[in-house]
Amino acid sequence: MSPGTLHLEGELRTGPVRITVIDYDADHHEERTVTDIAECFPYRDTGTVTWINIDGLANTEVIEKIGHCFSIHPLTLEDLLNTEQRPKMVDMEGYLYLSLKMLSMRKESFEIKVEHVSLIVGPNYLISFQEDVGDVFDPVRERIRREGGRTRKLGPDYLAYALIDDIVDNYFIVMEKIEERVEDLEEELVVSATRESVWKINRLKKDMIFLRKAVWPLREVITGLERVESPLIKESTHIYLRDVYDHTIQVIDTLETLRDMVSGMLDIYLSSLSYRMNEIMKVLTLIATIFIPLTFVAGVYGMNFRYMPELTWEYGYVTIWGVMIVMVVLMLFYFRKRQWI
Amino acid sequence: MSPGTLHLEGELRTGPVRITVIDYDADHHEERTVTDIAECFPYRDTGTVTWINIDGLANTEVIEKIGHCFSIHPLTLEDLLNTEQRPKMVDMEGYLYLSLKMLSMRKESFEIKVEHVSLIVGPNYLISFQEDVGDVFDPVRERIRREGGRTRKLGPDYLAYALIDDIVDNYFIVMEKIEERVEDLEEELVVSATRESVWKINRLKKDMIFLRKAVWPLREVITGLERVESPLIKESTHIYLRDVYDHTIQVIDTLETLRDMVSGMLDIYLSSLSYRMNEIMKVLTLIATIFIPLTFVAGVYGMNFRYMPELTWEYGYVTIWGVMIVMVVLMLFYFRKRQWI
Amino acid sequence: MSPGTLHLEGELRTGPVRITVIDYDADHHEERTVTDIAECFPYRDTGTVTWINIDGLANTEVIEKIGHCFSIHPLTLEDLLNTEQRPKMVDMEGYLYLSLKMLSMRKESFEIKVEHVSLIVGPNYLISFQEDVGDVFDPVRERIRREGGRTRKLGPDYLAYALIDDIVDNYFIVMEKIEERVEDLEEELVVSATRESVWKINRLKKDMIFLRKAVWPLREVITGLERVESPLIKESTHIYLRDVYDHTIQVIDTLETLRDMVSGMLDIYLSSLSYRMNEIMKVLTLIATIFIPLTFVAGVYGMNFRYMPELTWEYGYVTIWGVMIVMVVLMLFYFRKRQWI
Amino acid sequence: MSPGTLHLEGELRTGPVRITVIDYDADHHEERTVTDIAECFPYRDTGTVTWINIDGLANTEVIEKIGHCFSIHPLTLEDLLNTEQRPKMVDMEGYLYLSLKMLSMRKESFEIKVEHVSLIVGPNYLISFQEDVGDVFDPVRERIRREGGRTRKLGPDYLAYALIDDIVDNYFIVMEKIEERVEDLEEELVVSATRESVWKINRLKKDMIFLRKAVWPLREVITGLERVESPLIKESTHIYLRDVYDHTIQVIDTLETLRDMVSGMLDIYLSSLSYRMNEIMKVLTLIATIFIPLTFVAGVYGMNFRYMPELTWEYGYVTIWGVMIVMVVLMLFYFRKRQWI
Amino acid sequence: MSPGTLHLEGELRTGPVRITVIDYDADHHEERTVTDIAECFPYRDTGTVTWINIDGLANTEVIEKIGHCFSIHPLTLEDLLNTEQRPKMVDMEGYLYLSLKMLSMRKESFEIKVEHVSLIVGPNYLISFQEDVGDVFDPVRERIRREGGRTRKLGPDYLAYALIDDIVDNYFIVMEKIEERVEDLEEELVVSATRESVWKINRLKKDMIFLRKAVWPLREVITGLERVESPLIKESTHIYLRDVYDHTIQVIDTLETLRDMVSGMLDIYLSSLSYRMNEIMKVLTLIATIFIPLTFVAGVYGMNFRYMPELTWEYGYVTIWGVMIVMVVLMLFYFRKRQWI
Repeated sequence: MSPGTLHLEGELRTGPVRITVIDYDADHHEERTVTDIAECFPYRDTGTVTWINIDGLANTEVIEKIGHCFSIHPLTLEDLLNTEQRPKMVDMEGYLYLSLKMLSMRKESFEIKVEHVSLIVGPNYLISFQEDVGDVFDPVRERIRREGGRTRKLGPDYLAYALIDDIVDNYFIVMEKIEERVEDLEEELVVSATRESVWKINRLKKDMIFLRKAVWPLREVITGLERVESPLIKESTHIYLRDVYDHTIQVIDTLETLRDMVSGMLDIYLSSLSYRMNEIMKVLTLIATIFIPLTFVAGVYGMNFRYMPELTWEYGYVTIWGVMIVMVVLMLFYFRKRQWI
Repeated sequence: MSPGTLHLEGELRTGPVRITVIDYDADHHEERTVTDIAECFPYRDTGTVTWINIDGLANTEVIEKIGHCFSIHPLTLEDLLNTEQRPKMVDMEGYLYLSLKMLSMRKESFEIKVEHVSLIVGPNYLISFQEDVGDVFDPVRERIRREGGRTRKLGPDYLAYALIDDIVDNYFIVMEKIEERVEDLEEELVVSATRESVWKINRLKKDMIFLRKAVWPLREVITGLERVESPLIKESTHIYLRDVYDHTIQVIDTLETLRDMVSGMLDIYLSSLSYRMNEIMKVLTLIATIFIPLTFVAGVYGMNFRYMPELTWEYGYVTIWGVMIVMVVLMLFYFRKRQWI
Repeated sequence: MSPGTLHLEGELRTGPVRITVIDYDADHHEERTVTDIAECFPYRDTGTVTWINIDGLANTEVIEKIGHCFSIHPLTLEDLLNTEQRPKMVDMEGYLYLSLKMLSMRKESFEIKVEHVSLIVGPNYLISFQEDVGDVFDPVRERIRREGGRTRKLGPDYLAYALIDDIVDNYFIVMEKIEERVEDLEEELVVSATRESVWKINRLKKDMIFLRKAVWPLREVITGLERVESPLIKESTHIYLRDVYDHTIQVIDTLETLRDMVSGMLDIYLSSLSYRMNEIMKVLTLIATIFIPLTFVAGVYGMNFRYMPELTWEYGYVTIWGVMIVMVVLMLFYFRKRQWI
Repeated sequence: MSPGTLHLEGELRTGPVRITVIDYDADHHEERTVTDIAECFPYRDTGTVTWINIDGLANTEVIEKIGHCFSIHPLTLEDLLNTEQRPKMVDMEGYLYLSLKMLSMRKESFEIKVEHVSLIVGPNYLISFQEDVGDVFDPVRERIRREGGRTRKLGPDYLAYALIDDIVDNYFIVMEKIEERVEDLEEELVVSATRESVWKINRLKKDMIFLRKAVWPLREVITGLERVESPLIKESTHIYLRDVYDHTIQVIDTLETLRDMVSGMLDIYLSSLSYRMNEIMKVLTLIATIFIPLTFVAGVYGMNFRYMPELTWEYGYVTIWGVMIVMVVLMLFYFRKRQWI
Repeated sequence: MSPGTLHLEGELRTGPVRITVIDYDADHHEERTVTDIAECFPYRDTGTVTWINIDGLANTEVIEKIGHCFSIHPLTLEDLLNTEQRPKMVDMEGYLYLSLKMLSMRKESFEIKVEHVSLIVGPNYLISFQEDVGDVFDPVRERIRREGGRTRKLGPDYLAYALIDDIVDNYFIVMEKIEERVEDLEEELVVSATRESVWKINRLKKDMIFLRKAVWPLREVITGLERVESPLIKESTHIYLRDVYDHTIQVIDTLETLRDMVSGMLDIYLSSLSYRMNEIMKVLTLIATIFIPLTFVAGVYGMNFRYMPELTWEYGYVTIWGVMIVMVVLMLFYFRKRQWI
């Protein structure tokens, strides 16, 4: 297939496309859900800030229309449909393209859901593409609705920052959930490691790897935004980008800390198994070393030789009990000395 | 042997050389299979784009003739015959030399086949050298045939990009196959690890190493193409190179993820063995600690002392059974407390 | 919540805010505890150096008032309330913002307490924010009180240096305590490793991770201070910054040394368990291999066959004892040869 | 000892010094073995290229004479006598000094021999110093003898390249031998690991370390030659240096691959031991858990109680055999279920 | 304590201070041991090179006097008293400050002693500070005494080089001793690993860490000396600094090689324990699997059933011996097949 031909990579998702438009400036605010993408196009040439949000990537026709109207390069369209695309920032002619990963954790199953989010930041518009309906951008929408807020006064670059900030804030929540799982598992490993523990460690490791792939490149994305020589990013936005950069570093720090913890878990598991084996072997050895010699003694006097003088002694039986008790006491003394009991 | 003397390094391959020529521009398209390499030379001086593809490196005479006709440096000829040559990009006088690795996976045996591919990008021609007949370039050929497509309009630098893109797209397919193997092996390790598992882990590790050697240097090759100060790479091609660069990074990311998974596998195997050992020892210890003391008791009353009062008691035998049952119950209670059963 | 809205992140702490002001120059020195933050504002416009110290971040109203009076950016206010903020240095308009971590170790429990400290360095003032009452800055206060000292003669940049120096000096003390714990644990591991040892190793590892997160970024903070092109940091202060930088490197070196030691501990623990297992198994094997064959011999002559000639020999019993003693001697000889006893 | 005082570091080698001179230009070629070093000096001022090769470093007088004649700095003389000197390139006044490691593998014992080789590249001469007679430079000598070859036409910088190229080509041969050893050992580890295996792994590891020390710095040496701003390295030689650089990278790649393989070998050895232990324990457990309970049963009916009703039953003996056989069958069934047999 | 207040950090050392002065130029040479530091001050303003060596840092008064006379910054004085100071180079006004670590190894106990050495390099003087009497600088002193040597002709920068060179030369000696210990331990591990081996490995690891801390920063110190833009380091000294830099790299290389070796030792120890455990278990399993079934057979015929036909057979006893011998032979055959014996 020729590069630039549209097709949805990654897992195919069905369902209709939902398009919402928010148009605002300091004094004015309008929110609409449109059914035909063409309704959005007039906003392109107004002086207000327009945020077009598209939920669902299944309908490539819609994507192509937008691409045509906003002069978006075919390679960008391909990237925003590629749900496996890693986070990146590209400075294209007339707009910036941002690819991000939105994380969410299903509460019951602790499964992490990664959603591919694309932002196209133009001179007076921002178009966001998401895989599914439902996102973490409600706080931004709320702030746009509130008159007099900073968001209303500033342009699409600040809006882009606000969306990234929401995504990063959400990372903290996911990270906390994982931290809980890590701590639970750590306790389980020492106290009652089972065969399932290895599975759990493995799943945590994989989750870590996915998080890394989502979070690490974000750092470069934001650095890219700070360094890009484009009129689309205003000087005044830099301080906010720096702030969200700091948060990203904080997320990465936490992630690396968790990775450090998880990476040593299999060793803890192994040492836990080893310890338990030691305990088991101690019990076996104690029992065996005490009773095997005694059984031998009993065996000796169970022999049927005709001439065994001890057997006929009056106190032979009592004596032999005495001998055996002395043997046990000596054994126990020896074990105590070696600190086995 | 003097550097620049031609000889085929790596595994020697026999079989005839197959030469195909595709000559095209926006309006015109011609495809030929030639038997004598000299038939290709006239294309050198036409204004159209010519793609000469050579399958098979065994015939050094052909290589030398091409080298002479297109003024290719002896060191380049040596590199393109060296099938162990790692991927690289060299800016030579009059042309760019690219060395790449084309991967394919034999379906049944899961063996990865690495083929050494060389591209020579000149002002209006591209010469590709492959070890064997059969490649992954059919999509490109298809697009050249289609009139009006981008490929037809652009020069040999875009053609080179398109070939690299095909090679990288193919990496994704190989990677997916390996991912399956990794996941199968992971399950096997926890559920039913055998001696063969170590072999499998080892083979996966080696495959990873080969992939790394093929894929990692590709990054530098593409970066080199972007940075080279040569009129052979047009400004307009840069955006496409950036795109294939992104794909390469994605392949590398996946590869590193897989490596992370494989590198921990021997530990999982060891922990699996350890766990199993624990289970085995538990059974042994249970049986031994229950029956060894009982056997001792039985042994005691199997002794032949003349004076053993218990033996003559009417309920001696029943009593001793009682004692032994109490012992077993106490043992089981103790094991339950230690969570062994 | 909009970025720049004040709220206390991290663990919420209650309790009142305590504000102390130290105002000084070469000739003059004044120390006050104020109850209303407004009392500090007149100091802003005097020519003397003013150090305002705020203990407790619970009262965001106070923070907001200070922010308003000293023209502090909302993002800075947000950072200084975020107790999870990693150490950083930001060059804002009119002031430098420094975020640091103050460590202390609770003597009995060996728990490390990390306190988030923020410094705002202005042209003639320094404002420090701490989470709790109680800090490590008493040496600096003492030196300010002493007339004729360097601290009295120099500006808020030197004061900032002095505070950082105190914090870093305190790191050395914490590090020494940890070193003791590491050495104690190392001995415990070899001599008498128990299940609790794994917990201890784990806790040490986590403490290391927290220390790293506090100490490593400090390096960049100080480098940032040296490189910042701001009139707030005078040339003459650079030499002192270099000095505290060296100390930070020394702390990091020690930290990495300790990390190296701790990272190998689980292996020592495992090898200790393995060694002990070897010892246990040796004892079991000795006892079992000596007594199991003997028991067999005794068992043979406990059989009730009618025709067993040995049983009727006069010296049968003595002979069998002889045989058994020879067997034991041979066994012991074999064990000695294999160096098991 | 003052720096610059000559003495032979590393292992002292005795035996006479052998000096050979090859003098050539495009038209002329002369080869001599000289006994007095002074015979070489006239070549210094001719226009032809002179290659003086010195085998054996024991005679420091010869070295000093050469140093005096060719104005070689005492520190260079010290370096070329120091057989532990790591590969390096120094741009001295009037000449370049190159230190290299020549590898060879003794066929029978697989021992790697490392020989310290020094090259002094002057305007029209090259002096090479080797520890022993015998080297890998015969292909170069052969090419010099052949009239009309590139080597004859170019200067001492090309000669230096040709010598380095020979050394690097030889690395490939050594590497292949090591690869064989690695693969043999890998198979041995899984199939029949013995105590000697650890020794072999260890020796391989050490060999790897020595190779790394010889090969890695070579990269910098060649990069240094490419970057040096000296008229001694002509522009036209750069393309050849790039080529040998690529070969060095290839050697390093192979080396790292081998290192990766060797580094995991001890884990394979351990897992192999663990697996075998599992097998051993399974056998022990099977035997013990089957026969210990049976022995107990036999022991019970070996007791001598006067009143044991079972003993007098007519079918008591047969019944007890039945009970024991049922026990064995149940056991085997249980083991089969746990997949131990 | 205010920064710049003098106090001796690290372990406090007592004992008197010893001051020696060597004053020389090409023609003149004078050596003195002075009791009052003031006697050294006249040398400051002469044209000759003066080397003042101070052994012992206990007397801070002497240090302060020198500091005052030679205008040394309080922070430098603090650094030279801080025996924990890591190696560094500081370009101060009027002098360079160098901090180094001098190593020595106590022959009997193999303990490494680290001594903190400071050099102050001025325009015509060099002051060295050592913790204790006794150093590795005798070769330098000897060369100063020798008239006509390079040392006599050159300035304090060459003297500083010569001292660093002596220190680095001494590192080689220490390194060799450690190499011996590493090799001894390696053999011990495979042949006769005991509990003490872990201690030894641990001590080696710690020694490595200390060496790293002493040697690694030295590289930066020398690079710093080469790059410093100060008239105190003459152009002609650069070539010597480069030489000692090379030696430092060689020390670091050796150190890393040793670290690599030591880091794998615990694994060798573990594998050695594992191997031994295998051997022990094999013996136990052999004995147990041979004799437990036999004992069972003997037990069966020790039962007291009234009706046991075998007991009354004439050849019952012989037959049962035959059965048991066959069992043993079969067992041995099985073990041989599994390669256990």
